[in-house]
Amino acid sequence: MITKSQVKYIQSLGQKKFREEESAFVAEGPKIINELLDTASSGLQALYYTTAWKLEYPVIAAKADPALAHEIKEAELERISFLSTPHQVLGVFKKPVLPAPFRLRPGISLMLDGLQDPGNMGTIIRIADWFGVQQLVCSPDCADAYAPKVVQGSMGSIVRVQLLYTPLAALIQENPGLKLYAATLGGQPLTAAGKLTEGMLVIGNESKGVSREILAAATRQFTIPRVGKAESLNAAVATGILLSHLI
Amino acid sequence: MITKSQVKYIQSLGQKKFREEESAFVAEGPKIINELLDTASSGLQALYYTTAWKLEYPVIAAKADPALAHEIKEAELERISFLSTPHQVLGVFKKPVLPAPFRLRPGISLMLDGLQDPGNMGTIIRIADWFGVQQLVCSPDCADAYAPKVVQGSMGSIVRVQLLYTPLAALIQENPGLKLYAATLGGQPLTAAGKLTEGMLVIGNESKGVSREILAAATRQFTIPRVGKAESLNAAVATGILLSHLI
Repeated sequence: MITKSQVKYIQSLGQKKFREEESAFVAEGPKIINELLDTASSGLQALYYTTAWKLEYPVIAAKADPALAHEIKEAELERISFLSTPHQVLGVFKKPVLPAPFRLRPGISLMLDGLQDPGNMGTIIRIADWFGVQQLVCSPDCADAYAPKVVQGSMGSIVRVQLLYTPLAALIQENPGLKLYAATLGGQPLTAAGKLTEGMLVIGNESKGVSREILAAATRQFTIPRVGKAESLNAAVATGILLSHLI
Repeated sequence: MITKSQVKYIQSLGQKKFREEESAFVAEGPKIINELLDTASSGLQALYYTTAWKLEYPVIAAKADPALAHEIKEAELERISFLSTPHQVLGVFKKPVLPAPFRLRPGISLMLDGLQDPGNMGTIIRIADWFGVQQLVCSPDCADAYAPKVVQGSMGSIVRVQLLYTPLAALIQENPGLKLYAATLGGQPLTAAGKLTEGMLVIGNESKGVSREILAAATRQFTIPRVGKAESLNAAVATGILLSHLI
């Protein structure tokens, strides 16, 4: 059974405003639910699943505090799901709490400057996790990484990447000596860049690129050499290419 | 003015079946319309635009045969558009006719083996165009490159890349000595692969990867080295990374 107010609460988490007020988000599907249940930093608020799902995934189901687990009907799960083809399980989790004060870790991190597309955001979180990038600093106008579509698109990687939304200029000021590498269309050829060991790679907005303010603070600019005629590459594809050469 | 039967015809081109029967597709927006009008291989069937659009883009509007150009109302354009925020111009074009018999061009081409996601298809066409890849051979079960969403996602690159849908095993048989490079999770590290000068890079299905039949014919297998923990990379991102190292 699921109550009307539970349905309303879950549906409200489709909106950024409520995700921020509640500091909570929704995830769906056995794989990501399993990874979130294994992660100390993400607190389970509630888990909803069908009987069929519990029988298929008893080990995952057993990881949830029974007081927070709700067996519901398939039709009820369809009502709360954000997917067009719902999985048989949906969890509501608390957003991980970042250590305060926030400290940049050694190694290469990503900085997203006005990245607007939720699909790109999910794909970039997955790319970061592939290349072992542990921190993603996003300007406040970036797509919300905790939107249901982005959480799904990250394929579980959202569990392993630390996400901070903060004004970028202030973060740069607070970290003097920070090496900042901007992806632009007019920088050094990436193929001649060599490997990097520390600093942040900045990916800009899908149409406007990296903002002038951040560009002015960049230590170096890199460009993916073009052979053909396309005007640009998708921002997530560019992120993958850059990290594969720089790390 | 637009007639009921014109509206019905354009809407039918949202379906693969009718695009194949008519060998036609829809494109929207000034940039891609301009590129298609400049391309000898794509024949214009009909162009629909608002008065405001014609005043803003007189040079593009003048490229269309006046007998095929229709000035229509904004509300009419909204009815035929496949976009949630319609541009003020929509064109119906004949699919380019491929030379028969089809010949592989020298250099590196792409082979897509069961690539299902329309978003990935559009992004890969754009990546191919960026890296100067001129031919894309797709298995018949790939997403249709002429679907409205894919045409838009290619950002005009669909004009510059030759697309062939054909059973892959037959194409491989017809081209003895063809060098086939498969992107897999268990191949040689890409970073040690060096540059390639000829052959086809095979990208597999989003969840199942390259099919066993094609894998058996592959000359070499390449893997993008993983540092972190993500299980896989998005297919379009992987294509971009592979081409950036191999070309």
